[in-house]
Amino acid sequence: MAKQDGPSSKVREALRAAGDATLPDPGESPVGPSKKDKGAKKLDTAGERLEALQEALYAEGIGGGGRSVLLVLQGMDTSGKGGTVRHVLGLVNPMGVHYAGFKAPTPAERRHPYLWRIRKQLPVAGQIGVFDRSHYEDILVPRVNGLLTADERRRRYAEINAFEKELADAGTTVVKVFLHISPEEQLERLKARLVTPAKYWKYNPGDLEARSHWTAYQKAYADVLRRTSTDIAPWYVVPADRKWYRNWAVAELLIETLTELDPKFPEPDFDVEAELAKLKGVGVPE
Amino acid sequence: MAKQDGPSSKVREALRAAGDATLPDPGESPVGPSKKDKGAKKLDTAGERLEALQEALYAEGIGGGGRSVLLVLQGMDTSGKGGTVRHVLGLVNPMGVHYAGFKAPTPAERRHPYLWRIRKQLPVAGQIGVFDRSHYEDILVPRVNGLLTADERRRRYAEINAFEKELADAGTTVVKVFLHISPEEQLERLKARLVTPAKYWKYNPGDLEARSHWTAYQKAYADVLRRTSTDIAPWYVVPADRKWYRNWAVAELLIETLTELDPKFPEPDFDVEAELAKLKGVGVPE
Repeated sequence: MAKQDGPSSKVREALRAAGDATLPDPGESPVGPSKKDKGAKKLDTAGERLEALQEALYAEGIGGGGRSVLLVLQGMDTSGKGGTVRHVLGLVNPMGVHYAGFKAPTPAERRHPYLWRIRKQLPVAGQIGVFDRSHYEDILVPRVNGLLTADERRRRYAEINAFEKELADAGTTVVKVFLHISPEEQLERLKARLVTPAKYWKYNPGDLEARSHWTAYQKAYADVLRRTSTDIAPWYVVPADRKWYRNWAVAELLIETLTELDPKFPEPDFDVEAELAKLKGVGVPE
Repeated sequence: MAKQDGPSSKVREALRAAGDATLPDPGESPVGPSKKDKGAKKLDTAGERLEALQEALYAEGIGGGGRSVLLVLQGMDTSGKGGTVRHVLGLVNPMGVHYAGFKAPTPAERRHPYLWRIRKQLPVAGQIGVFDRSHYEDILVPRVNGLLTADERRRRYAEINAFEKELADAGTTVVKVFLHISPEEQLERLKARLVTPAKYWKYNPGDLEARSHWTAYQKAYADVLRRTSTDIAPWYVVPADRKWYRNWAVAELLIETLTELDPKFPEPDFDVEAELAKLKGVGVPE
């Protein structure tokens, strides 16, 4: 039975990872705009809503509320994790955003359990946290490289599900997004990075090595979607061949999530009338 | 002698704290636009330049460069520290921004030297750090509250100057901004917070207590400007009664600073032609 007056969850429903982890066409629009100019216009108005919701969440946190949002971005190289941060999180007040990018763990990080460095970057109350790659790399990469036994893999799925349950219990709503691109589009984006000197820094020869394992990565992602898409921390698959669609979709996922959270500006912990009266009596210092 | 071909430092020169710490009129434009519509238009184009410079700084950091920028925002309550973060830092990619707000130290923080919590929030290479209040609170507040002897004060000035020298040596350019508002404007802004429920959370009855020490705070700020405005970490005084002017001025201070730093997209650490050739031979995975 559909909720009658609840916030829309149209985009979340349409993009939620299928139980069998079948993936939509990376160039299609399972929901929302199918033309670029309409998508860009919709992102503009989405920006205003997102900023207003984020401000309320932030204010709620300042007022003692314990809730936060964590956006987890995963996807193959060039899938647009950085672009999403720039164009979607760039719509809201940087005061309320905590960004953390996770590269291959350093030797010092490897001496800790893999969730150690993740926990250190969790958003505090009122924040929207953004993980550009995440603890999911600790399943995907070693799996593709043949470094995890099936048992270890299962243990990690269970650990991650327990970790995300713990986050939910603590007030953090986890929104997991798989930016789904086609290998053809990746090839174009890699080329673009090699013909523009101002983009060289985004290119890494290791990207080709990862690309050569494309099918293995898709299989690893499919397993991740199957094993770790839970009701408290579902995965959304965003077709990401078109950047404007990706931006629109991630913005809407955040908006729907925040609308459901319905963050509240805190009640004053002081007497408003009394303070106003005091202000009236206040002079201007010499 | 003026530099012939160097980047402009017109705004930095005009707003740099005077040696005798005399302050400009908080409602005037010592440099730049004096009308709101022109100021807003200029902020738009400033946004593009700032974003481009910030991207280069970020890329430089990824490429192994060690430089970063730290924007320190100080000012009386309602002077617009948060608004500056939202409207100026909101112009750039959140990936490259590290925001830290410093409230009154907690009991746990008080058990450490006052610079301890500050150091933990310093930007890493490639980032623009933003301090919303800072180590300067550790001089201003105890001074006004009569908790620092003249000797202790002098020691803190010296410690802070040494700290900022250390930052400069380590590659961090510190840009210190005093958002200068009038007590009349503060009164209006405090009132606005009390008549709009969505702004209650920004109001704190303690703000009136601080306001009652307005003259003492202005004196404390004047001393801070005199004692800690150094060539490597100068103070800028931004007239902040008009929000659009404040935003424009802080954006320009950052742009001039970054233009002088002239961050460079890193040279590729791989053979571009060889990688392009490899890409040409790469097929599309099944």
